[in-house]
Amino acid sequence: MAIRQGRYTLNLTTRPSILGNAAVVGKTEGEGPLSAEFDHIYTDDTLGEISFEKAESTLQREAIIRALDKAGKTPADIDYILAGDLLNQCIGTSFGIRELGIPFLGLYGACSTMALSLGLASVLVDAKAANFAVASTSSHFASAERQFRQPLEYGGQRPPTAQRTATAAGASVVGCSDPNKPCVEAVTFGKIMDLGIKDANNMGAAMAPAAADTIANFFTDTATSPADYDLILTGDLGIVGSQLLKELLQKDHNIDISRNHTDCGLLIYDIEGQDVHAGGSGCGCAGSVFNSYILRRICEGDLKNVLLVATGALMSPTSTLQGESIPSVAHAVLVSKPQNVS
Amino acid sequence: MAIRQGRYTLNLTTRPSILGNAAVVGKTEGEGPLSAEFDHIYTDDTLGEISFEKAESTLQREAIIRALDKAGKTPADIDYILAGDLLNQCIGTSFGIRELGIPFLGLYGACSTMALSLGLASVLVDAKAANFAVASTSSHFASAERQFRQPLEYGGQRPPTAQRTATAAGASVVGCSDPNKPCVEAVTFGKIMDLGIKDANNMGAAMAPAAADTIANFFTDTATSPADYDLILTGDLGIVGSQLLKELLQKDHNIDISRNHTDCGLLIYDIEGQDVHAGGSGCGCAGSVFNSYILRRICEGDLKNVLLVATGALMSPTSTLQGESIPSVAHAVLVSKPQNVS
Repeated sequence: MAIRQGRYTLNLTTRPSILGNAAVVGKTEGEGPLSAEFDHIYTDDTLGEISFEKAESTLQREAIIRALDKAGKTPADIDYILAGDLLNQCIGTSFGIRELGIPFLGLYGACSTMALSLGLASVLVDAKAANFAVASTSSHFASAERQFRQPLEYGGQRPPTAQRTATAAGASVVGCSDPNKPCVEAVTFGKIMDLGIKDANNMGAAMAPAAADTIANFFTDTATSPADYDLILTGDLGIVGSQLLKELLQKDHNIDISRNHTDCGLLIYDIEGQDVHAGGSGCGCAGSVFNSYILRRICEGDLKNVLLVATGALMSPTSTLQGESIPSVAHAVLVSKPQNVS
Repeated sequence: MAIRQGRYTLNLTTRPSILGNAAVVGKTEGEGPLSAEFDHIYTDDTLGEISFEKAESTLQREAIIRALDKAGKTPADIDYILAGDLLNQCIGTSFGIRELGIPFLGLYGACSTMALSLGLASVLVDAKAANFAVASTSSHFASAERQFRQPLEYGGQRPPTAQRTATAAGASVVGCSDPNKPCVEAVTFGKIMDLGIKDANNMGAAMAPAAADTIANFFTDTATSPADYDLILTGDLGIVGSQLLKELLQKDHNIDISRNHTDCGLLIYDIEGQDVHAGGSGCGCAGSVFNSYILRRICEGDLKNVLLVATGALMSPTSTLQGESIPSVAHAVLVSKPQNVS
């Protein structure tokens, strides 16, 4: 049963486990430093589909099917799938999962979706409202560029602050506590923050205040500090946002995360060598990095506990054209090593 | 605590209550048969804002603030807001609520959002993961027409099967069981159904199979029949979809709901007199009808129990242009009269 801890945090006392997880990615992501970690690398970013949107749907479905398989489950075992993506009306998700026949709780959290879906799935399992739930998300470089910036064919130049939307999907299968599997200890859902950043090519800066707020709230609620965690892993702040996050936490909250912070957007690419500007972004960035490299290290006990803080920028191309600033949100999920692993 | 009943249904044993609710609408909706039921009618559909998108944000915020006020709560009392809308990246919601400072669980369920948000808020309260949660949604005729069909300025002609997106918002505040307030007894989240309808001007037909599936699952899981309920209220099937729903339930499941079924899209307008073609639609249609007329009648004991089944079409303009069919989903929430009302 969830116990509310402070204003923002839920302590999930039954410690739901991540029974299976998978990450599948596109060609560029497969050429990056995490190459060996992913379940599958597609060398053709169309995945053989006739549109990039359909390719993204296939990507997400593939991650879900592989995660289910690794958990020893079929779609018929799953009570709910909690999922979303960046595309208008979340079609990456709805077309990707429609044939699975699993009751669907559609989410929109932009790039925070992996933490939102995993957190909510864990709360439902903890409450016994679900025996098994899937959390998943996806993004695709080409479908996102066309929708949010320019179609690839336009050949527009990207500024150095821009991040690259990862062609990637990740999925976790959550169930009752299993001593041989990683477990979800706590969840902190964030509130919307908006400090007035209007540059859609600088999402890291727009999202950093939301990450800072959620992280500070988590530490206050749990009466812990960065030293209590092996890793504080933000999703998709990239170079600019990660630096800003550290400054905001230091300045506003006197919290120093410089020793044990990294960001999924910094891990997924070789930033210098792969021409990805300020790093990776997109729902699938945190989704794939967490569901491969990070969960492997947690499973092995190499990382004892990780605070995943995925961040989302909640603007649309329309709001950007209308001159609006970028509201952002960040959700945090505390994941710990399996009980039986020392 | 939620008890799983059958494959799809959650029995919320603590019976969370709807402590406050509000509905605000635009001019056309205010001229319809439910005129006297709404908390506020805006005679100018811009709400004094410079864009229809901003108008929709203001509409949703206004519904939330009024619902909070009627529940005797402030934003600081609320643990989570669960909300979404039809606009790309759900900006009606994110820009509408950003100043409230409430932890935000973003949802995308298209026109099913009122049932999705109310259902999930009730599950969280039932599980004691939240003391108080807000469920809300909105839609706006002009912002939706521009995004999904044609801008109003184009003057396109709408076919008879088309529904009118309501300019409307609704919000409910959910908390622990209160004998003087309506309560949420059960929730059935639906799975995606897609029978191959491709006509974005005939959403009712696309969504009817999802409604039929969820309703049939609810009756199977609870071992009840239509006669056990005062009202089965679908969200936004309109004339075409309502007829199809009845046929599908009769044909595929031998269930007859003709005696106690109506649809929010048939209630919100004077269909003959207001030139609204096949009836109302949009997240705000079910949101506003449920949070005004229906909850008033439940509060008064005039309706003892109502199965709200809001339906959502999960396509996007992109998927429609790509020739895809329309996947749909429907979520059901069983709401009953206050214990202290006979």
